Amino acid sequence: MNYQRFFSEAIDQLHAERRYRVFADLERIVGAFPRALWRSDEEAREITVWCSNDYLGMGQHESVISAMQDAAGAMGAGAGGTRNISGNNHPLVELEAELADLHGKQAGLVFTSGFISNEASISTIARLLPNCLVLSDELNHASMIEGVRRSGAEKKIFRHNDVEHLESLLKAAGPERAKLIVFESVYSMDGDIAPIEAIADLADKYNAMTYIDEVHAVGMYGARGGGITERDGLAHRIDIIEGTLAKGFGVIGGYITGSTAVIDAVRSYASGFIFTTALPPAIAAAATASIRHLKASSVERDAQQRQAQQTKDKLSAAGLPVMPSQTHIVPLLVGDPELCKQATDRLLEKHGIYIQPINYPTVPRGTERLRITPTPFHDDALIDTLRDALLETWEALGIPFNEADQPQQAKSDRVVSLLVPKSGG
Amino acid sequence: MNYQRFFSEAIDQLHAERRYRVFADLERIVGAFPRALWRSDEEAREITVWCSNDYLGMGQHESVISAMQDAAGAMGAGAGGTRNISGNNHPLVELEAELADLHGKQAGLVFTSGFISNEASISTIARLLPNCLVLSDELNHASMIEGVRRSGAEKKIFRHNDVEHLESLLKAAGPERAKLIVFESVYSMDGDIAPIEAIADLADKYNAMTYIDEVHAVGMYGARGGGITERDGLAHRIDIIEGTLAKGFGVIGGYITGSTAVIDAVRSYASGFIFTTALPPAIAAAATASIRHLKASSVERDAQQRQAQQTKDKLSAAGLPVMPSQTHIVPLLVGDPELCKQATDRLLEKHGIYIQPINYPTVPRGTERLRITPTPFHDDALIDTLRDALLETWEALGIPFNEADQPQQAKSDRVVSLLVPKSGG
Ligand SMILES: Cc1ncc(COP(=O)(O)O)c(C=O)c1O
Ligand SMILES: Cc1ncc(COP(=O)(O)O)c(C=O)c1O
Repeated sequence: MNYQRFFSEAIDQLHAERRYRVFADLERIVGAFPRALWRSDEEAREITVWCSNDYLGMGQHESVISAMQDAAGAMGAGAGGTRNISGNNHPLVELEAELADLHGKQAGLVFTSGFISNEASISTIARLLPNCLVLSDELNHASMIEGVRRSGAEKKIFRHNDVEHLESLLKAAGPERAKLIVFESVYSMDGDIAPIEAIADLADKYNAMTYIDEVHAVGMYGARGGGITERDGLAHRIDIIEGTLAKGFGVIGGYITGSTAVIDAVRSYASGFIFTTALPPAIAAAATASIRHLKASSVERDAQQRQAQQTKDKLSAAGLPVMPSQTHIVPLLVGDPELCKQATDRLLEKHGIYIQPINYPTVPRGTERLRITPTPFHDDALIDTLRDALLETWEALGIPFNEADQPQQAKSDRVVSLLVPKSGG
Repeated sequence: MNYQRFFSEAIDQLHAERRYRVFADLERIVGAFPRALWRSDEEAREITVWCSNDYLGMGQHESVISAMQDAAGAMGAGAGGTRNISGNNHPLVELEAELADLHGKQAGLVFTSGFISNEASISTIARLLPNCLVLSDELNHASMIEGVRRSGAEKKIFRHNDVEHLESLLKAAGPERAKLIVFESVYSMDGDIAPIEAIADLADKYNAMTYIDEVHAVGMYGARGGGITERDGLAHRIDIIEGTLAKGFGVIGGYITGSTAVIDAVRSYASGFIFTTALPPAIAAAATASIRHLKASSVERDAQQRQAQQTKDKLSAAGLPVMPSQTHIVPLLVGDPELCKQATDRLLEKHGIYIQPINYPTVPRGTERLRITPTPFHDDALIDTLRDALLETWEALGIPFNEADQPQQAKSDRVVSLLVPKSGG
């Protein structure tokens, strides 16, 4: 066994499959969002980011930054311990109350990331419940799949957003058996939305618990930013609402909200919550400032929706193959991995526009795409520039122009395998 | 199935076993470390923290806080994306170079926490290697155990720090089979140190990879804070050195360092690295400032060692049962869970001294203890106050005074089970 050679070959294989990833070295610029410095070969250039998940630009919001700076100045850079051993800082306690309120739940619990919040919560709940059956949407995020896996519970995958399929699985399990339905509100690669009410109805009918990931919706939907469940008046019908502090809210961290009993059980039993240093007070304070701002202000949400619609309209009008999306996410079909990579390279090098290519296995082969995320700060002029750059790129590389020329859009099959890294992360 | 009742009962069970945990609500005070505000029932009191893992007080270091504030002011509060999709910020790239240099390795990789760095790295390495056998110290941290478990690889547990036992397992596996030895340098509950050189010798002899967790040593040992492997000149003999940014360095986050090939493989294949938002530039900048300071300055390390020794000496001289420890960690034997809890409650209420009780299953029954962590900021006067408070408490509660009266100190058996939460986190 030659370890170094083995790992070198594992990397060579990624190169050979053209799946080796190089991370763009970026430096965001407060006040100039979505502009950023991009470093390559010692040279630094200013570019426009069109694929940020700082969806509302809250990461550069003055109240968020100053909350972070003030808390760091007063309480220091770190928490200094796990939640149980000296790390339970007061801003974190306040943040959890703020989150419970945001979703109209009894309690909230904060984790170091959305990834860990899913993994730790789903695994703990499904493991505590005796003989639990987990019903999981086929397009669920890697962190949810890890949680299901780690629970050791039996799982059944239902076809994406397919309520009939879900019902047949619930019916087969029977009302007595413990069941946990795990799904997302907004699926981030296609921008489609789950049939939340129908799923909640089924959960009632068959006595199942419901767990929703609102990572790509919190801050952005609902009158106070409580996500799609708030927008549609369904928050009270879902047992556990999970979210991130790193996307719409612009900071870092993840959380769940739910009844006191469930939250307390996860708090008390989840290894990924217990055995790790708490989030710093400065992070908690920044997140709270962001949530509070977005509870009171719809300006950012409205502007995001308007600019996303503008982007869809302008790109479509230019004949560019915008894929259908019900949300702020604007996927643009390329349909070929090599072309997809070439297009993004060209956009960056020639046009100073940064969009990460989304290839298999994040999305099915034949649906390779650019995933564009307009924010309130992508103004009309930037959208025009984007359209022109895309047109130039589409023509130069001979990418087909309208969707009719493209293969039928297949359902994504984001199967997670450790051995098949996905470009989705 | 009544879900709410089920979870309520799971919590009731913890109450019944007296293992239900209430987190102390703390607000640290920059400039007054280790003082903090402690909130209970709306009242806030100033107390002294004696169980912080901000081991060197770097969380309140001026250069660390200002690096955090400046980066937040210039680059914003969050990263805005995963490492691959727009979140790879420049301070993070610099931090990884700094960490590689710290441990004399080719490359470094940063994760959102030390927990995730262990879980994601160990699981990925052991899963990629064909038919890998993991050899794991019986006292390894929960995050390492999760990593081993999730790899799906076969594992053998060797008795704590027992080189002969490890050798017998290596020999049985044979030189051809892929093997990964996973252990810690400093074990945080007893303060003992692994026989690193002997383990490295065995790894050479039997062709095994080595993975060391230096979470409780980085920043604190070695001329530049590279941990016990630096202090003992052994860093080059270990394949992967893992650490945290949240304890000695006072911020948050975790990392691994190693050869380019191994680090690149983990970067490319680890789900817990790929599918999560990157650490914010402000966190990365603060961590880099802390590491740089501690590379150049030994003042903090020396003061910590001196105050830890002072604490051991003064408590021992007073007849208090200090347990043997080779490091900055000062465990004080109580030997009974109820008394341990009563002692810490009394210390907090009556003396304004906060130390979290450490009970089973974090440590074996009969070795319940206070785990005291003196920092450079616990000056001689604070140590005297601590000693006096402990004496009062020991007398008031009738806790036995010297170790001879106590049961033989058993080896810790930190067996991780999701259903048996440990107070160690
Ligand atoms: C659906 C979904 N859930 C969870 C996460 C993880 O959240 P975080 O980035 O806060 O770890 C992501 C992406 O990062 C996601 O897309
Ligand atoms: C040995 C060990 N490894 C890893 C960790 C996790 O590190 P972090 O707190 O950065 O998640 C801890 C404690 O938190 C630990 O004690």
